[in-house]
Amino acid sequence: MASSLLHCSDKLPFMDVEAILHMKEGLGETSYAQNSSLQKRGMDTLKSLITNAATDVYISQMPERFTVADLGCSSGPNALCLVEAIVGSVGRVCGRRPSQPPPEFSVLLNDLPTNDFNTIFFSLPEFTDRLKAAAETDEWGRPMVFLSGVPGSFYGRLFPRRSVHFVCSCSSLHWLSQVPPGLFDEAGRPVNTGKMYISSTSPAAVPVAYLRQFQRDLGLFLKCRAAEVVPGGRMVLAMLGRQTEAGYIDRRTTFLWELLSESLAALVSQGVVEQEKVDAYNVPFYAPSMEEVEEEVRREGSFRLDYAQTYEISLSSSGDAREDGRTVSMAIRAIQESMLSHHFGADVVDALFHRYTDLVTESMEREEVKSLQIGVVLTRYSTGLRTGCALGLPFNSLLRRRRLLRPLSVLGAGGQGYFLPGAWVPI
Amino acid sequence: MASSLLHCSDKLPFMDVEAILHMKEGLGETSYAQNSSLQKRGMDTLKSLITNAATDVYISQMPERFTVADLGCSSGPNALCLVEAIVGSVGRVCGRRPSQPPPEFSVLLNDLPTNDFNTIFFSLPEFTDRLKAAAETDEWGRPMVFLSGVPGSFYGRLFPRRSVHFVCSCSSLHWLSQVPPGLFDEAGRPVNTGKMYISSTSPAAVPVAYLRQFQRDLGLFLKCRAAEVVPGGRMVLAMLGRQTEAGYIDRRTTFLWELLSESLAALVSQGVVEQEKVDAYNVPFYAPSMEEVEEEVRREGSFRLDYAQTYEISLSSSGDAREDGRTVSMAIRAIQESMLSHHFGADVVDALFHRYTDLVTESMEREEVKSLQIGVVLTRYSTGLRTGCALGLPFNSLLRRRRLLRPLSVLGAGGQGYFLPGAWVPI
Repeated sequence: MASSLLHCSDKLPFMDVEAILHMKEGLGETSYAQNSSLQKRGMDTLKSLITNAATDVYISQMPERFTVADLGCSSGPNALCLVEAIVGSVGRVCGRRPSQPPPEFSVLLNDLPTNDFNTIFFSLPEFTDRLKAAAETDEWGRPMVFLSGVPGSFYGRLFPRRSVHFVCSCSSLHWLSQVPPGLFDEAGRPVNTGKMYISSTSPAAVPVAYLRQFQRDLGLFLKCRAAEVVPGGRMVLAMLGRQTEAGYIDRRTTFLWELLSESLAALVSQGVVEQEKVDAYNVPFYAPSMEEVEEEVRREGSFRLDYAQTYEISLSSSGDAREDGRTVSMAIRAIQESMLSHHFGADVVDALFHRYTDLVTESMEREEVKSLQIGVVLTRYSTGLRTGCALGLPFNSLLRRRRLLRPLSVLGAGGQGYFLPGAWVPI
Repeated sequence: MASSLLHCSDKLPFMDVEAILHMKEGLGETSYAQNSSLQKRGMDTLKSLITNAATDVYISQMPERFTVADLGCSSGPNALCLVEAIVGSVGRVCGRRPSQPPPEFSVLLNDLPTNDFNTIFFSLPEFTDRLKAAAETDEWGRPMVFLSGVPGSFYGRLFPRRSVHFVCSCSSLHWLSQVPPGLFDEAGRPVNTGKMYISSTSPAAVPVAYLRQFQRDLGLFLKCRAAEVVPGGRMVLAMLGRQTEAGYIDRRTTFLWELLSESLAALVSQGVVEQEKVDAYNVPFYAPSMEEVEEEVRREGSFRLDYAQTYEISLSSSGDAREDGRTVSMAIRAIQESMLSHHFGADVVDALFHRYTDLVTESMEREEVKSLQIGVVLTRYSTGLRTGCALGLPFNSLLRRRRLLRPLSVLGAGGQGYFLPGAWVPI
């Protein structure tokens, strides 16, 4: 839980991302709980991939205690969504094998210490009731689910050695541990003036600084998880991403930051916000390409990359630009309010998002707005099996291959999935 | 996490203790965090007993991962107090043995789902800093401490089977899972009219109802922990209690409830609160005698009772009755506000505690006010060793006996500790 301070001149405020960044707490109108339907749709798209990968790990290991972790669980209804699906899925597998009682589930919900865990915990009785009802319907006995909240940055160790069978992380790994130090020159002056993320007008140093920070962070993430995940255990990681044809600029990822920079510029022209503050504001965010993720997985070397997928989600879901614009604007507010308030002061947030809603709505009236997500399935190597792992697979691995193939058919036309060469031998 | 509803007539409000009872959240003037100095003193008195018992378990088992649980951790500064002492104590033992690296610590903080876990988690960076500083001072290396919050009632299962080495619980087990059903007759009429706890004017059915609920709850607690604690693992349990010479009425425990009933009576006479509501209000609390605790431990049969102790704490700590009266009143408010607000409405709480502070202060001007606590050390039997466990102990058990004796010398004159016959053979 080491804090990470922004390398910044004394004149500018420090930004300790770990201590500040959190989804808007509570259940109010601007809370993340009320404004996370976009993330929910991303999770729903991945749900089959996640539950199949988790069930696969369970079947291959059959532990008495099956430990599942959701990293970056946030708060609100999304926080329990994936773990509920995983428990149900493994439970149904056991229900089909009368001789196999379901395991005890240890469910670890992780997010930064500033996350609103209270709201998750308040909703536990309903979570338990839903699980019981599902277990009765599917006749797989009463599940023993032990749930805990694990506060801390996933760019550090979170769990004891070899204690976790399955990890999932959705819509979180695009958040960096800190604003990249390279966004400030040696004198502490910001280099990405007027912008908060990589933009077509950004100097070349900007995407390089972001990429380096992402590589460092993902490498650290993988190293920590390598210590925690049991051999043969799996991770499904999904995050906002981009396609390389577009270089560093993929409109599906940069677009919403561009509009937020424009909204800030409007407040500068009204004299509400200082230009210097806007210049110094950068989001600790990076949308990687699939190749960048694959490269880091290979470089770190503890996990085999079994499956990779990119998929688009339309943000113009209702067909009503005003409604969709408000949904998107409120979602970005729930995510960004903590950092914007810290940097600019809480009193500018309403005006900023009033302008932002207008800009997003205008764009959505002109065109369909989409986001691009990438997802990967990784398997923890057993010691000594880092190379040649795909050769001479036993029969049950072939069964597992079929199981993991299944999600492709349910992901819809928007998804582009492929198995990595060497991950499995052909049948 | 099954909810427990009060058996009560339709006219009276239900009291789902698990969903309502919680220490006052946050860091404000009336919060538990600001008003838990009395509980802190109770914990400080027990700290040596707890750290010695925990260290003893560690030395006897030397696990790579040492799992410690604090049940009923509450929020505020007390929440991390005991686990910090345990980690430090085990770390120092390892520091004295250069060949023995400290274990990975898994620290499980439990309380009801309505507890304010957010406030605990916000304070984690300081907790980590303190641990690092202590580790540097004592030269026992950087500790790996994995902390999680486990929401749920300790009258149900909280952790996977055989997963915990050491459990402590301070100032929590006097809280029952529900208001005893026997406090209402078959027609749903309250039998303990005008009182909220056992009083000299209570009918005989009242202490019987409380004792039965306590026996049922403690039995359930022990059964659940028996599944979770590893063989040879230990628990230190401390709670408010009474001495049997006084029957069911021990002024050190009943006194503060009597004054709260008196305060409510004053509000009734002012027409602010209805008598019917006061009659129906009972605290889900029971102060057991040591004999009652011992009997339940023997009856359940999974734990050996190694050590038992009663000790007094003076609540008249500053010598200034007005200051002490306010401290005690605010402490009771932080504990009881959630239930009182639910039953009587939030608008009566200020007036109630204004009166209560006066009554407590007047009493403290007349006499020294004390509370009585009882503490026990239990060891989980290994399978098949439930009888005759004390015979033929190996040498290191004799060493452990000396270790556990040590706390007696630091507990001060107020403590009365004794080893249970048969728990250890004499040297």
